[in-house]
Amino acid sequence: MVHSEDVSVRSTKRTHWVDITDEVARVVSVSGVKEGIVMVASLHTTAGITLNENADPDVERDVFWKLGQLIPQENAYHHVEGNSDSHLKASLVGLSAHVPVRGGKPVLGTWQSIYFCEFDGPRNRRVVVTVAGE
Amino acid sequence: MVHSEDVSVRSTKRTHWVDITDEVARVVSVSGVKEGIVMVASLHTTAGITLNENADPDVERDVFWKLGQLIPQENAYHHVEGNSDSHLKASLVGLSAHVPVRGGKPVLGTWQSIYFCEFDGPRNRRVVVTVAGE
Amino acid sequence: MVHSEDVSVRSTKRTHWVDITDEVARVVSVSGVKEGIVMVASLHTTAGITLNENADPDVERDVFWKLGQLIPQENAYHHVEGNSDSHLKASLVGLSAHVPVRGGKPVLGTWQSIYFCEFDGPRNRRVVVTVAGE
Repeated sequence: MVHSEDVSVRSTKRTHWVDITDEVARVVSVSGVKEGIVMVASLHTTAGITLNENADPDVERDVFWKLGQLIPQENAYHHVEGNSDSHLKASLVGLSAHVPVRGGKPVLGTWQSIYFCEFDGPRNRRVVVTVAGE
Repeated sequence: MVHSEDVSVRSTKRTHWVDITDEVARVVSVSGVKEGIVMVASLHTTAGITLNENADPDVERDVFWKLGQLIPQENAYHHVEGNSDSHLKASLVGLSAHVPVRGGKPVLGTWQSIYFCEFDGPRNRRVVVTVAGE
Repeated sequence: MVHSEDVSVRSTKRTHWVDITDEVARVVSVSGVKEGIVMVASLHTTAGITLNENADPDVERDVFWKLGQLIPQENAYHHVEGNSDSHLKASLVGLSAHVPVRGGKPVLGTWQSIYFCEFDGPRNRRVVVTVAGE
């Protein structure tokens, strides 16, 4: 059994984690899949998907600060759009995240949320949530 | 056909690769899935999963040394738990690894093992192994 | 329904993105899967898989330049093969990429291609493309 939906995401800063856990859980619920896997995929090349901590907003702040320090926007890139840092960050964080499904729900750890990771916002973005299983 | 099991992992250092290939192969064997995919997912936010070389222990040493040099623990983070480096490392390495299954076995390259990547140990950790296929 | 094929990739530089989108789309088409997921997995420990921009070759140039600046080959590694940088890059970029399948085709964003990411070439490499769905 496979169920797939597009989900819209609005980022409001150049680098911005958007918590999409509730949307993903909704798609899993609608899918009717009880046991399986849910995949969340970014359709972009300057935004990725990851899991990380949902409790302390300082985690997002620290992670983006350090990642920006390692891969600054201002570097000596050739790509004329000036967002080569965003392309590299997307490939490092990864373009998709994957979560097991049990009892019709995503299996997440106590502190885990699913984050859309914007690296070249603010923008309107599109994510594909695909649930596969039985 | 979907089969899913929790696997316990014990890390004994702050940063520590634990080879969980045999455990994953056992779950694949038990699942009865002959052709498909196995997903190995971390339920944490300071530990990831990857594939890497199993032959020379210096690979683990070099990879962690370099990653720690890029993302040191001592940085100017705000998150009070003092493990923001671990959160970033987990998102960069990734929270899950995925291996094809053929003939009831994980398809790994000659030098590949499946590693639980601890970035904030030592701790008792939990991994979900999900096998899907036919 | 599961279909899996090996695909050969030839890299011609030490660090080299090889666009394998057409090969992946061919395997999806052959599989007969209409709705599902396609997983592209590297069988190596010094080469990964990612999605990134296909329009401007400067993106590849910038991404590899910056990644090489962060993780140079010349570092003080212990691993005698002298490719510890490649091992770390593979684990950061990730060993597999995953794309939804709809209507018998991979669902990619406007600018997305699927790239084999060589970090220790030139070499002949092997990728496993697995399509699962219905």
